[in-house]
Amino acid sequence: MLRLVLPKGSLERATFELFAAADLTVQRSSDVDYSASIDDPRVEDVRILRPQEIPRYIEEGLFDIGITGRDWIEETTADVVSLGALHYSKSTTSPVRIVLAVGVDSPVSTVGDLPAGCRVATEYPRLTERFLAERGVEAEVRFSYGATEAKVPDIADAVVEITETGRALRAAGLRIIDTVLVSNTELIANRSSFADPQRARAMAQLHVLLEGTLEARGKVLVKLNVSAANLDAVIEVLPSMKSPTVSKLFGDDAYAVETVVPKSDINVLIPALKERGATDIIELALSKIVH
Amino acid sequence: MLRLVLPKGSLERATFELFAAADLTVQRSSDVDYSASIDDPRVEDVRILRPQEIPRYIEEGLFDIGITGRDWIEETTADVVSLGALHYSKSTTSPVRIVLAVGVDSPVSTVGDLPAGCRVATEYPRLTERFLAERGVEAEVRFSYGATEAKVPDIADAVVEITETGRALRAAGLRIIDTVLVSNTELIANRSSFADPQRARAMAQLHVLLEGTLEARGKVLVKLNVSAANLDAVIEVLPSMKSPTVSKLFGDDAYAVETVVPKSDINVLIPALKERGATDIIELALSKIVH
Amino acid sequence: MLRLVLPKGSLERATFELFAAADLTVQRSSDVDYSASIDDPRVEDVRILRPQEIPRYIEEGLFDIGITGRDWIEETTADVVSLGALHYSKSTTSPVRIVLAVGVDSPVSTVGDLPAGCRVATEYPRLTERFLAERGVEAEVRFSYGATEAKVPDIADAVVEITETGRALRAAGLRIIDTVLVSNTELIANRSSFADPQRARAMAQLHVLLEGTLEARGKVLVKLNVSAANLDAVIEVLPSMKSPTVSKLFGDDAYAVETVVPKSDINVLIPALKERGATDIIELALSKIVH
Amino acid sequence: MLRLVLPKGSLERATFELFAAADLTVQRSSDVDYSASIDDPRVEDVRILRPQEIPRYIEEGLFDIGITGRDWIEETTADVVSLGALHYSKSTTSPVRIVLAVGVDSPVSTVGDLPAGCRVATEYPRLTERFLAERGVEAEVRFSYGATEAKVPDIADAVVEITETGRALRAAGLRIIDTVLVSNTELIANRSSFADPQRARAMAQLHVLLEGTLEARGKVLVKLNVSAANLDAVIEVLPSMKSPTVSKLFGDDAYAVETVVPKSDINVLIPALKERGATDIIELALSKIVH
Amino acid sequence: MLRLVLPKGSLERATFELFAAADLTVQRSSDVDYSASIDDPRVEDVRILRPQEIPRYIEEGLFDIGITGRDWIEETTADVVSLGALHYSKSTTSPVRIVLAVGVDSPVSTVGDLPAGCRVATEYPRLTERFLAERGVEAEVRFSYGATEAKVPDIADAVVEITETGRALRAAGLRIIDTVLVSNTELIANRSSFADPQRARAMAQLHVLLEGTLEARGKVLVKLNVSAANLDAVIEVLPSMKSPTVSKLFGDDAYAVETVVPKSDINVLIPALKERGATDIIELALSKIVH
Amino acid sequence: MLRLVLPKGSLERATFELFAAADLTVQRSSDVDYSASIDDPRVEDVRILRPQEIPRYIEEGLFDIGITGRDWIEETTADVVSLGALHYSKSTTSPVRIVLAVGVDSPVSTVGDLPAGCRVATEYPRLTERFLAERGVEAEVRFSYGATEAKVPDIADAVVEITETGRALRAAGLRIIDTVLVSNTELIANRSSFADPQRARAMAQLHVLLEGTLEARGKVLVKLNVSAANLDAVIEVLPSMKSPTVSKLFGDDAYAVETVVPKSDINVLIPALKERGATDIIELALSKIVH
Repeated sequence: MLRLVLPKGSLERATFELFAAADLTVQRSSDVDYSASIDDPRVEDVRILRPQEIPRYIEEGLFDIGITGRDWIEETTADVVSLGALHYSKSTTSPVRIVLAVGVDSPVSTVGDLPAGCRVATEYPRLTERFLAERGVEAEVRFSYGATEAKVPDIADAVVEITETGRALRAAGLRIIDTVLVSNTELIANRSSFADPQRARAMAQLHVLLEGTLEARGKVLVKLNVSAANLDAVIEVLPSMKSPTVSKLFGDDAYAVETVVPKSDINVLIPALKERGATDIIELALSKIVH
Repeated sequence: MLRLVLPKGSLERATFELFAAADLTVQRSSDVDYSASIDDPRVEDVRILRPQEIPRYIEEGLFDIGITGRDWIEETTADVVSLGALHYSKSTTSPVRIVLAVGVDSPVSTVGDLPAGCRVATEYPRLTERFLAERGVEAEVRFSYGATEAKVPDIADAVVEITETGRALRAAGLRIIDTVLVSNTELIANRSSFADPQRARAMAQLHVLLEGTLEARGKVLVKLNVSAANLDAVIEVLPSMKSPTVSKLFGDDAYAVETVVPKSDINVLIPALKERGATDIIELALSKIVH
Repeated sequence: MLRLVLPKGSLERATFELFAAADLTVQRSSDVDYSASIDDPRVEDVRILRPQEIPRYIEEGLFDIGITGRDWIEETTADVVSLGALHYSKSTTSPVRIVLAVGVDSPVSTVGDLPAGCRVATEYPRLTERFLAERGVEAEVRFSYGATEAKVPDIADAVVEITETGRALRAAGLRIIDTVLVSNTELIANRSSFADPQRARAMAQLHVLLEGTLEARGKVLVKLNVSAANLDAVIEVLPSMKSPTVSKLFGDDAYAVETVVPKSDINVLIPALKERGATDIIELALSKIVH
Repeated sequence: MLRLVLPKGSLERATFELFAAADLTVQRSSDVDYSASIDDPRVEDVRILRPQEIPRYIEEGLFDIGITGRDWIEETTADVVSLGALHYSKSTTSPVRIVLAVGVDSPVSTVGDLPAGCRVATEYPRLTERFLAERGVEAEVRFSYGATEAKVPDIADAVVEITETGRALRAAGLRIIDTVLVSNTELIANRSSFADPQRARAMAQLHVLLEGTLEARGKVLVKLNVSAANLDAVIEVLPSMKSPTVSKLFGDDAYAVETVVPKSDINVLIPALKERGATDIIELALSKIVH
Repeated sequence: MLRLVLPKGSLERATFELFAAADLTVQRSSDVDYSASIDDPRVEDVRILRPQEIPRYIEEGLFDIGITGRDWIEETTADVVSLGALHYSKSTTSPVRIVLAVGVDSPVSTVGDLPAGCRVATEYPRLTERFLAERGVEAEVRFSYGATEAKVPDIADAVVEITETGRALRAAGLRIIDTVLVSNTELIANRSSFADPQRARAMAQLHVLLEGTLEARGKVLVKLNVSAANLDAVIEVLPSMKSPTVSKLFGDDAYAVETVVPKSDINVLIPALKERGATDIIELALSKIVH
Repeated sequence: MLRLVLPKGSLERATFELFAAADLTVQRSSDVDYSASIDDPRVEDVRILRPQEIPRYIEEGLFDIGITGRDWIEETTADVVSLGALHYSKSTTSPVRIVLAVGVDSPVSTVGDLPAGCRVATEYPRLTERFLAERGVEAEVRFSYGATEAKVPDIADAVVEITETGRALRAAGLRIIDTVLVSNTELIANRSSFADPQRARAMAQLHVLLEGTLEARGKVLVKLNVSAANLDAVIEVLPSMKSPTVSKLFGDDAYAVETVVPKSDINVLIPALKERGATDIIELALSKIVH
């Protein structure tokens, strides 16, 4: 019932893996196919298109719901409803940044230092023009078809370019001097589709499944046994996000405890649990979490 | 104690993955080796041979048990015991189909339209001859060494060919007009080996492990907490395949519920559970299920 | 706070996978980078270097803790603290062996048969010299830069060489006549770093996480339901490594049982459980186990 | 002395192979480097940039000479000097075509049938607008970031798209209804650089080397011996592009003849030569031809 | 005008490379396409089919001319005209052999030792039956779908199998005891097509081009200069296949000599030429040779 | 009759390509085989071993002749006869350099600045010790098993390391301060084998073939026609390495000229020839040149 559009290119693989993990496997005949389907009553049709074009198509109602980056929503100024960020990008769970960069040897150190008439190459000409105009800089902004970072200093004086870690920019001899936008992957919807209660409910349900899958990637289920005497000491050290599930063990004066904890805490937590008397600690991977 | 034979070729990789997941890892020195072993007291010897030849070898007692397709059992008319279908094929969990197809522009629309003497190319000559004879068609059935779908219309007037999705046949300009056989992967046994109680028991045990692994692929374990007040509403919406495991939580008037549900239901079930008051819903992957 | 060194080369991929599974993901900019980092308060710095050189660097205090093989500890006779074996190697969980081998047609059948002055090629000259000297053999031990197994009989009369399965040696026409060393991967520490209580505690915690991850690879969590009448029969058949976790099911005269069992037992255990009345048996993969 | 710019992307590999074959090997540190060099006194500097941007950079004098497609010269309307076509493209020696295409089921059969307001997706918006305006069609031309052929019929009513063989368009369910441009790869120069006699001479020399290499790809050197009696008959059948080189053989009343012939003629020519008495016919590959 | 059929499978790549080198490039849309074309007035249509089936299709007139192995002509006993062997196979220029092999430990040492009723597995059942019958051996010949060499000793007592070097058979633990057939790649024609003078002439022309290309692979063109005094000594040592082409050099009392020699002789010939006073010896690769 | 040893590792592929081009194709059953053969009466046996070990094996008479780098001859100080350099390395025709390098930020700028006791990591310990001792530097030279360039500054203060272009060293943050050795690939022989006239003659012949092949890689054959009037002007501009071969053309007052010229001159020469009246200029690749 929902027409869905997914991003081709750098986000494509990560998006397909997320949908598969959310039991919403996207089926298409080949990797170069632009049409696909999801075997789910809420999804009528799936297209895979360039993320640059997705905000406009959602705005125009060609699709009800789609995934693209915040960068392209800002660049296109398309009027869409954002259902919220989905915390994944090409290879990490962090957002990407759109930055302003100059050559390492350039005397320019802040955006205000850019001289009038300087050439700025970018794949985001409108975003860049707004950013510079708001800061009073009169630059010649030029659309770049790619390889933007290689254009300084011969072909451009500065660039506005996407980066995950800054490494590619540094390798190209560039220095970041400002952040134009911090951009997450987002789930966006067409305004009138979203105003329809039935479709809005379906959208919210898809959102729960995708969010639940993303959240599960950063968490694990920890199970342990503990004697009655040590129960409080163990409970105390567990992360407070939610009360742990405690069951009395049959025939022993002991308890089984299970709880969900962030992966980032686990390598500190497990030694602590052990020190407080927890035994038989096991850790299991999660497929989905829904609060 | 059992001599086992596994299929080389299109089913090979999926079969090896299934055995590994069932903790019956097949060990061989290289990918082109025809001999292998499984570190299990019930398996004496493992060979990897063409699926076409497996039914005959099982019938003759060269092996006790083996895996092949129903298509080759029918083609060879070998006298073997079937322990049942294993629901996996090269890339899906669906059976394959052996179909009769003609050129898209052919005037033939049912098997009965095939003119006497028409040339039918196939890798299944005996199956095809039986199928056509039963329908009163006198055709010239010719053994095809491969590329069967490319033989219409120059070299053959029709083909009997295997297909998973029909896509390759359509791409070759063919139209399916009938289904000769729906063929699952099967676990088959030699008649006299199966008559031996000790070997039959070992076969049944292997079958349980393989079946349990296949079943786990399509299911997940769902765990959730729910207050006493909402327990019935939550239980009600759970799939009825089996009663869920309910334990009282220590110190709260609440319950922990866990149950196994099909993956295909999960993206509808989770939103429903949440709406009925379930909290802390988590989903875990399963390695095996045995009823 | 700990400076860590990991082995480049044949153990590299397996080591990185182990650390990632232990939630100690090693981050480096490229596969050929020798510097890396781990986002954990206990790890200050990570280097990836040849396993041959690691014992010496640990001894000299260039690093606090590291991973290498027992073979290189013996070859270098470096004075380091061993925190214990980590049971993984390039592709299996078994240790490797350093063996003495001669040509299949050689009259030599034990180390004592080696004639004085015979040429022994090896990447382990010191280990080999000690081994031969202890057995009273006077040989000319020569350092081999590689392809050691190809040197018999033209260039050497015997070799001392690493092997996992013996297959490469057999393929090169060699026959193993003695084992010089059975070598596990080990976690080793600098003596004075280990004498510092704070660093020793951090080392022990890392050890727990790595060990817990390795142990989880060979085990699974089994969950089942059983009626009160069959409870004892089911408990009896479970491996005795640890008492199983038993909880009473709500509303039924039945119990939920869960326990951790070795993968190597599972294909015998599951049929046995079923025969004793267990129902709803499921098996789940584990990420970590800590006793 | 010349600053040269070469096209990144689909023409990149073919361009680098052409330059290497012309003994003007382009050296760069890695495949993703945008800077390179050629060890030749006439080439001062080499950059590799998107073909879309090259005409403008040549016009502005950032480079003296460059290679791009006629399509991008027309799209950018950059004012540059064309030194002539170089007959190679991504994989053939034929030009590419920029075509107007609609869905196979569309009622539109000529450009004039396009209704006012119809949506035309293209990577060549200016070229498309000029083409349609000249034919009196008022369409909404939209810039496409890629996957243009997949946009019909949902997102666009027609496309203007590049094609070598038309196969990708047909596979996407499109029908070509008009040719907007036949586009060759071209060698272009900056106007004022070209006005400088010394640089113009260097450009002409590079042009000769590239042209000579391309021409040699389609020709072979044929050598044969023939008696005096058959000389005229053999000469007569040789292609008339140039008089063959004839030398008298020492001591015989016979001649050695050699000539350059197109590859496309050779499989007809050789049998004809043999029938007319030529002997010892051999064929050699050529590296370069300069008339 | 000729309908041509080429072999799919092990000969496919070598055949396509031969045709391309002969300026008869086979064009097809993809590597898995069974239809192709050659841009030559003598070739009307090209199909790529299994070599096993080609003799029969040529006999039946579905094609005028084709390439397959002598083994399949013998196996099928198809009535076709052979235009002669083309000396190339999968990876060498030597013919393949169809051999009879038994296990290394088998007591059988000649074909006559095979006991009555012994099982012989082969992809060539008819060829094998004829071979054995002529030698008075009564065996049970069984069609093998592949992996034939792995069937001894469990599934077969002997095999009749194709081999280029014998290496794969030795690696499988087999010992060759007889040669059933030495098989070259052959160019074959339909009887009635060959009886048509115009088609026969076109076939002969294609044969010349393919043969000329194959011959050129094993030969090189040697050019050298030599003084009048040394001319005879140099001529004397040149291979006698054809008189060399000798031209007097302008202005010197010296001669230029050129001749075609086998590659296999060149590494002995060049030192000899040098010793006899030849100077400026150069060697060039050849594309085709026609006598 | 000669026992030949070739280098495994970085020179392996280039060496095999050189021998194949010299019509001395090295045949081995697989890429990991250490034994091989060459079908040539002068070569009795071929082994492929580490270049580090080759000088010693040649000295000891295990082989008559071999290929390795000058670096390993110097490192091992083996007493061998050098037949001369072969100008090829892993990927270029230039020699490699063994250099002394320090960190970019190190205060050390010449070898004499190295402080006493400084740690120098290298795969060439003896060469390094001699080099430093001759310059009065007392350093701690340590054998490095690899990744040498990554050891500065933590593990070593300086390195002595091989480099082709210096790029890898720069990328690792190192600065070259001295050259220890310029090292070519060399053809070396055992002293007593070389003293045997028959074997020395065979060695010289192999040397001619390898040298002739290497020389041909950098040269091309140029052929042109020229009128009598322009002959002198054309001859004049040809490189003077050797008189060109000039033949009078039959029936015209014109000449055919052919000569061999370095590839590095060709892109300047061809335009010059054309300007002086040469016509029908063609360029052909050479397989071998012997003076």
